[in-house]
Amino acid sequence: MNLDIKQWKHVFKLDPDRELSDEALEAVCISGTDAVMVGGSSGVTFENTVDLLARVRRFEVPCVLELSSKEAVVPGFDLFMIPMVLNSRNVDWVIGHHREALKEYGALLDWDRLLTEGYVMLNGQSTAARVTEADAAVSVKDIEAYARMADRLLHCPIFYMEYSGVFGDMQTVAKVRGLLRQSRLFYGGGIAGPEQASLAAAACDTIVVGNAVYDDLEQALATVSAVKF
Amino acid sequence: MNLDIKQWKHVFKLDPDRELSDEALEAVCISGTDAVMVGGSSGVTFENTVDLLARVRRFEVPCVLELSSKEAVVPGFDLFMIPMVLNSRNVDWVIGHHREALKEYGALLDWDRLLTEGYVMLNGQSTAARVTEADAAVSVKDIEAYARMADRLLHCPIFYMEYSGVFGDMQTVAKVRGLLRQSRLFYGGGIAGPEQASLAAAACDTIVVGNAVYDDLEQALATVSAVKF
Repeated sequence: MNLDIKQWKHVFKLDPDRELSDEALEAVCISGTDAVMVGGSSGVTFENTVDLLARVRRFEVPCVLELSSKEAVVPGFDLFMIPMVLNSRNVDWVIGHHREALKEYGALLDWDRLLTEGYVMLNGQSTAARVTEADAAVSVKDIEAYARMADRLLHCPIFYMEYSGVFGDMQTVAKVRGLLRQSRLFYGGGIAGPEQASLAAAACDTIVVGNAVYDDLEQALATVSAVKF
Repeated sequence: MNLDIKQWKHVFKLDPDRELSDEALEAVCISGTDAVMVGGSSGVTFENTVDLLARVRRFEVPCVLELSSKEAVVPGFDLFMIPMVLNSRNVDWVIGHHREALKEYGALLDWDRLLTEGYVMLNGQSTAARVTEADAAVSVKDIEAYARMADRLLHCPIFYMEYSGVFGDMQTVAKVRGLLRQSRLFYGGGIAGPEQASLAAAACDTIVVGNAVYDDLEQALATVSAVKF
């Protein structure tokens, strides 16, 4: 099992709050993707998270929890990703929820399995941006500043450009990748099939395919071979 | 000139907005302290910062700028410390001002000379806490959570417990130092003379002596030998 995110090109993101048949889940897990990430913006609970983990665990693919609330901290994942929403107006989404989680679990955590993600939410209409009170009206210069902050001040292993639901500006994505020294650039948003997957993979380090799994599974599965082989 | 902060036990902090005679400045710079840090909570400008740098530069002591506003970014210091006020209610003091500074200087910065400081402001009555909108009513468990965050999530080279103006609880300080793996623990607040200096030095890694320089220089100078020799 390859847990070195530097080698990941493709990740599927599954939402514990959405239905997925056993057949679809199996197809996702044996697709050749580098990892399955479990996370969502709303409706994520301990129960639906542990349930999804148990279902993914039957396969060999790395399984990552993207923590969005301390209620949904489920042990047993291979890695835990901690989002910091750098363009949130509310300090809770930058570090506040993290303090609360650390108060509860700080003494127990396996720090080697924790990776911070410096997030920038770029679609102001998305649930993710609304929930996290993100100011999505940012310029390219702002995004570059966030990228440098994540990379060199905060030492985030991941800088995450999240266009959730829409396909982003690949020129900006490529430009940002050129600035990063340590952080890996994750891109998410609007990857509906192999064509967008190829374009995004050319601009970032790792593409994240989420909604497509639920909207058109065949197209979603085709994104793996578009970037991996 | 020793720029390895891991070896620093004692730092003088000078405020560009306060008067200090040439004789007093010389005594501070040749005292044997490990570094002179330039910074303040209000009234810091480019002019008074560059002026103080020029005066300190006549001596061999390391000279550090603690950045508090992008207007006062003066080149030529040995190190630049970037405070992130972890217990601020306002996201600007956590990372917002940093984004603005990075937008302006991001392409020019010498990143090897930048060190982040994860600050916790612990005296709610102080100017520093008021200016940074800090929630100083924190429990020991909160401080521990901030310490773990600075140390292991944000990878801050410095975790800074700032009691500005009052002498803190050394039991808490010592407890926090026991949690840190990578960050060095800086302590500031109420070190008026050698007695508090010794107590604080026993609990933290590096003591910061500020107001005493202006209030009672002789006592301030005596803090150096209390911890260094």
